[in-house]
Formats: sequence, C-alpha cells, structure tokens
Amino acid sequence: MNDMSDIPAVMTEIGRRAKAAAAELAFTPPARKTAALEAAADAVWANRAQIIDANAQDLQFGRDKGLTDAMMDRLLLDEGRIRGIVDGLRAIAGQDDPVGKVIAQWEQPSGLQIERVRTPLGVVGVIYESRPNVTADAGALCLKSGNAVILRGGSESFHSSRAIHACLVEGLVKAGLPEDAIQLVPTRDRGAVTELLQMTDYVDVIVPRGGKGLVGLVQREARVPVFAHLEGIVHIYIDASADPVKALAVVLNAKTRRTGICGAAECLLIHRDAVDTIGQGVIRALIEAGVEVRADAALQAIEGTSAASEEDWGREYLDSIIAAKVVEDEDAAIAHIRDFGSHHTDCILAEDPAAAQRFIERVDSAIVMVNASTQFADGGEFGMGAEIGIATGKMHARGPVGAEQLTSFKYVVRADGALRS
Amino acid sequence: MNDMSDIPAVMTEIGRRAKAAAAELAFTPPARKTAALEAAADAVWANRAQIIDANAQDLQFGRDKGLTDAMMDRLLLDEGRIRGIVDGLRAIAGQDDPVGKVIAQWEQPSGLQIERVRTPLGVVGVIYESRPNVTADAGALCLKSGNAVILRGGSESFHSSRAIHACLVEGLVKAGLPEDAIQLVPTRDRGAVTELLQMTDYVDVIVPRGGKGLVGLVQREARVPVFAHLEGIVHIYIDASADPVKALAVVLNAKTRRTGICGAAECLLIHRDAVDTIGQGVIRALIEAGVEVRADAALQAIEGTSAASEEDWGREYLDSIIAAKVVEDEDAAIAHIRDFGSHHTDCILAEDPAAAQRFIERVDSAIVMVNASTQFADGGEFGMGAEIGIATGKMHARGPVGAEQLTSFKYVVRADGALRS
Repeated sequence: MNDMSDIPAVMTEIGRRAKAAAAELAFTPPARKTAALEAAADAVWANRAQIIDANAQDLQFGRDKGLTDAMMDRLLLDEGRIRGIVDGLRAIAGQDDPVGKVIAQWEQPSGLQIERVRTPLGVVGVIYESRPNVTADAGALCLKSGNAVILRGGSESFHSSRAIHACLVEGLVKAGLPEDAIQLVPTRDRGAVTELLQMTDYVDVIVPRGGKGLVGLVQREARVPVFAHLEGIVHIYIDASADPVKALAVVLNAKTRRTGICGAAECLLIHRDAVDTIGQGVIRALIEAGVEVRADAALQAIEGTSAASEEDWGREYLDSIIAAKVVEDEDAAIAHIRDFGSHHTDCILAEDPAAAQRFIERVDSAIVMVNASTQFADGGEFGMGAEIGIATGKMHARGPVGAEQLTSFKYVVRADGALRS
Repeated sequence: MNDMSDIPAVMTEIGRRAKAAAAELAFTPPARKTAALEAAADAVWANRAQIIDANAQDLQFGRDKGLTDAMMDRLLLDEGRIRGIVDGLRAIAGQDDPVGKVIAQWEQPSGLQIERVRTPLGVVGVIYESRPNVTADAGALCLKSGNAVILRGGSESFHSSRAIHACLVEGLVKAGLPEDAIQLVPTRDRGAVTELLQMTDYVDVIVPRGGKGLVGLVQREARVPVFAHLEGIVHIYIDASADPVKALAVVLNAKTRRTGICGAAECLLIHRDAVDTIGQGVIRALIEAGVEVRADAALQAIEGTSAASEEDWGREYLDSIIAAKVVEDEDAAIAHIRDFGSHHTDCILAEDPAAAQRFIERVDSAIVMVNASTQFADGGEFGMGAEIGIATGKMHARGPVGAEQLTSFKYVVRADGALRS
C-alpha cells in the first residue's frame, strides 16, 4: 500500500484494485462465493478472541473520546454478538445467488431472443459508522451480489472492523477469489470519505449507513450515485375506521419495541373522530409505557402529555418520545406526511378498505403499511435476508437493500444472423 | 409566468407546479392518461398546418445559424413526420399502463402480506437537442408512466416544440388532467438547463438526450440523478467460429443501414484466424458499400483501407466510417471493448456457444448481442414501445428507456394488527 499520508493516491489504488476484482467477480460461479462466505464465518468464529481484543482497543478509544452509552453499546462486541455475525454470514451464504438470474425473456418477430439478466453493479462503496458488524454484513452482501466492495467504517470501530475484515479476506483466499473483492480503507483520515464519494472512475454506487451528519455529507459531496438512506420519520395514522384493540397494540409495538431503529414510529396522527374512542387510550398507554408524548393543542388535555413545538413535526427521535397530533380527516394526515415525512415507512390503522387504498396510493414512501407495526420495516422481516440499509430515494433500490438490490442487469440478445430492415 | 429574465425564479415556479401535478398523476386512472394521449394525437393532426408554420421559423433560424444539412434534416417537420408523431402518441396511448402493477407479492410467517407495486418516479426533466418530435415522445412516455415532465428542447426547435407542446396540453385539458403535467421551458436561455440540473427539491431524474456536449454538461453540473445516455461506441467482434455468410450480412447491416443512430457499429474486431476466411471479404464489402475502413497495420494490406490512428479506437463516428482491428483471441476482443467501449451495445458473431457465453458474461454493456445486427438496439425493436433514450449507466434504468423504466416502486404491506416480536 502507498504512503498513508497521500490519501488520493491510497484511494485511487484501492479503487483500481476493486475494479479489477469486480471484473472477475462478475462471472464467478455461485459456489465459490458461498464457499468464501462459509470460510469467512469459520474464520470469524475461530478468531473471536482476537476480535474481542481488537474491540477492547476501540472501546478504550471510545471511552477516551467520551462516547455516549448508546454509542458504546453499538460499538461493543462480545461472544454473543460475534455469534450473530457468524450466523449472518452463513445466512447470506445460503441465500439464492442473484447474479445471472434471467428476470425476463421474450422473443421478437424479427427473430431476436431477448433476456434481461441480473448482473453485479460493479464496485460498491459502503460508508458506515460505529457498528462493527456492518463490516461483515456489507462485505458479505456485496460479495453475494458479485460486487467488489470498498468498506469505510467509523473511526471508533477501526480495530474491530480490521479484525473482522481480516477474516473476510481469509474466506476469499480460501475460495480462490481475489483478496481485493472486499477492501477496508486502512486509514481513519476523513479525507478518504471525500475521495471515495468522488471516485466516479472506480465506484459505481455509494451506500451510506449512518446518521444525519453522514448522509448530509454524502449528499453534498458525492459525485458517484448514492443509495440514500435518510431518516426514518415514521408516521402512524389512526383512521376513524381503525379497530381500537389493534390500534393500541400496533402503536405500542411500533413505538416501544425498540426505539433506536429506523422503523420506530416517531409521530402519531389521529383522526378527530377517533380521538375519544381510540386516541386517548393509546396515548395513556404510551405514557404508562414510559414514552414522552409531545401533543398538539387538541391532545394536551390528556394528563401526562407535554406540549409539542413546531420542531416536533418531522423529527426522528430514535428515543422514547413520540409526537402526537389530531387531523381533520385522512387527507390532512396524508398532507402532514407529505410535508414532514422522509419517504421511509408510514402506516395507516383502518378497517375501511377505501381509506386504506387512498393512503396506499397517496403516501409516497418506500414502505406503506396497513394495520402492521412499522417495526417490521426491515429486510429480514421482509424475507429478503440481510440488508445493508433502507433506501429512501426512488431510483434503483428503494426500501430494504439486500443482495438483489445490489445488482443491475443487461440485455442479452441472441439471433441467427438477424438484420434490421 | 414570471419575468423571463429571472431564470431561477421561472424554473422554481415550473418545478413547484410539476411537483404538484406529479402528486395528482400518481393516482390518475389509466383511462384518463390514455384519453389525454389520444386527444393530444388528434390535436397534433388537426394543428399540423400551424406546426409546419412554426417549424418554418425554426428552419429559418437554423439556416441563419448555419446548421449542417444533417442538423437541418433532424429539425425538419413535414406532413409525413407529423403523421409519425401522431402514430407515436397513439402507440404510447395503447401500451399497458405500468403504474400500480404488482411486480411481486409474497406473505411472511409474521402475517405480513407484501406487494412490490410500480409507482411513478415523480418529476422527470428531459433535456434534448434539435429533433422536435422528442417533445411528443418524451411528454407522452412520462405521462404514461404517471410522471410530470419538464421538457427543455433545443433552441433550434424552439417554435416547433412549442407548437407540439400546445397540442399535448390540449390533450391534458380535454382529459381533465393538470396542464402542468407536461411543461416546456419557455426560454432559450442556457441558464435554464443549469437550473433544471440542480433542482433537487423538484426534479427526481434528468434524461439527457443529445450529443457529447450535452451529456458532458449534464455529468458536470447535475445534482439530480441522471439516466445517462453516453455515446454508442458499438463493437462487432468476428470470432474464429463465426459463420461467413451471417457475418458479412450482419456487419454490413450494423454499419450501413443507418449510420447516424446510436446502435450503428463503429468498430470491427476480427479474430486472427478469421481474417482470411471472413474478415477480408467483410472489409471489401464495406468498402464497396461506400464505407471508409480505418484499419490497423494487419489489415492495411486490403486495398481501399486507410490507416487507423490511436484516436480511431473508442470513437463514435455516426457516419460512414468504421475502425477495424485484428485481435489475437476472444479475450483480446473483450479487453479492447472494456478499454474503448461505452457500455451501450456490443456484438459477437460466433457459432461456438462457449465463445458466445464467454462474451455475454464478460462484456459489461447494457445490450450484448450474439449474431444480430447492432441496429436492433432500440426500444421499439425490443418490443418496449417508444423509448426516451438508451441508458448506459448501471443504476435503475439500463438499455432502452420506455414507460416502464420511468417508474419506481413501493412496498405495500398489509396485515391484521401484526406486531413484531
């Protein structure tokens, strides 16, 4: 590797190697990729003591840096979490290989036999923050989909990511695949992120996985296409036709099961005709469950609520807080979501099919739910296996990004000397 | 409309209106869109005299500006070409509506019923050059796919595009759809293009349709995602296993049927074992057909060839010229395409299935052909109806961009109060 102080040179070399590896991965047989992932899983488990030692260095760095408890928890690896990484690698190994799959085929009167065939994207750049397990998930999903990947982990998880990455490389080598198929940026220098975002000659897509700061940086600086994962400003709307029992259970689950994930509900909208019959009970139950309810004027009469300010609409708390608001009708709920949502996941609780259909058609989010907890917004829960994030843009990949979403396609046209007249 | 000298204000207003129209188009029933397109076709035919008058103004402007004959020809509208526009509108009207189509559906053990449903992208910006018929094609394809569109035609076709656009608006109004669904930028000011490329709040995707200059400008300035249509640097490789009769006919068709389209062959690669048996005859036939053959050293012995220079590799002539080169083997042909191609369309002529498969797997182009004329690289010839261009990127849309490629999707999740455990 080059002199680490010359970041552009270091990154260009990484990009060049990734592109060369990608050219080979594009036609690697599925069994070789599976073998590499299985071998990587074996290596992670065999090297768990070293990984935990590396993680201890990161934890020390985190303590010195004064990370919050939540961030320290995201950083921590113990044997249970390493077991989770190993299981994740084996699950991805066992998934269907998307590359080469014929998505569509047809014949034209001219004699052309046309197939649309899945292909890898090429080189994927993944930029993530503290969770070291993303090193394994992202590396494995990119390999499964035939892409070379350049991983740029958070500086807090530097040593842990390096230890996990070494195991992935061990898997590649054992399966006879190019080591450069999964590279980890070997420096904490922030300049490497900027380089990665602008390497249009070498990188086909950037997947940013992290908070608002990272996503904002990516949106400002990227010249490479991005699978944006914006905030999950998740709304649940209780329609006049909602079932009270389901509404209570779904809202509680959507808010309290885990507050720190992107599918957690952040704003409750209640049809004015459902306030007395359903809304009050739901809000009281949320308060009893320890949730701070920031209510609009109409709901502040309910004991235990606090007053919402303008900043509470369109806010992602990722905490035990929810905003709550009464709306005149369904269209007002839809308008609120249009103004304040983030096109991630939004849900209607309704028994009236027409109300559900109106919501489905008019709410422009990656995931639109009817009578289901928004905590289901997850690639695993969708049956897609592991995911690298939830895309909130409209281009290419939307919703959970798994191996299939990390592919493109080509048209293969076969004929027997067909000429165009 | 605002003061035309304040381009940012003019464009922001257009963007705002497009976004509002897009919100309504997203749930417009298919029959209304069909009715609008049929009414637009009627209006174009009824107003053909006015369109031809408007076109005369553009032709005068073009003559004053000293446009080439080829450009003047692209600009020209006569009754036959207007008939073509009308037929195109009716063909798009008759196509299947992609919006709302369920692409996939499945059920999860948790009780979730998941559908992946096609949705419009939102607002499409189309930037094109002299051909005024693009106004109708692009406007119609975007409407069919439920998108609002902002059209920015070439300054040469300003009056013709305006006349055609008026007919599209007449169709929208007759069908009760928002006029702002299809807007034409009402100024020739180049600043409008830059604005359009950077309106991330209002525009979801840019489709540039034009030459190298336009595409370069778009790639430099765009902050909005782009369906890039790069050059068609189309290669045909004659393998050692090629059939001589098919090879001769396919190469001639691929080069000479129409030289100005993006699927026209620009470079001929010949396996060294096929030079004497096939290559020489093909090159002589090209020369007889009036094609200038720019040959590498090995082929210059053939009478009538000229010497290729380094600039001839990777060049899009769009003219009666072809580069020709001998390669050691198939892998050398693939390497040449990797170095000099544009990921558009490339073809192998081969009877050996293993050679064909190797080419299909290793050539990373939107369209890979076996024994077919590259002139088939066209949405119509693929059975996709009209197209707005051929995308050469790997994201979202690749190959011919028709109505279906102008859509995104959302996940619709239905349950009966499902909670995540």
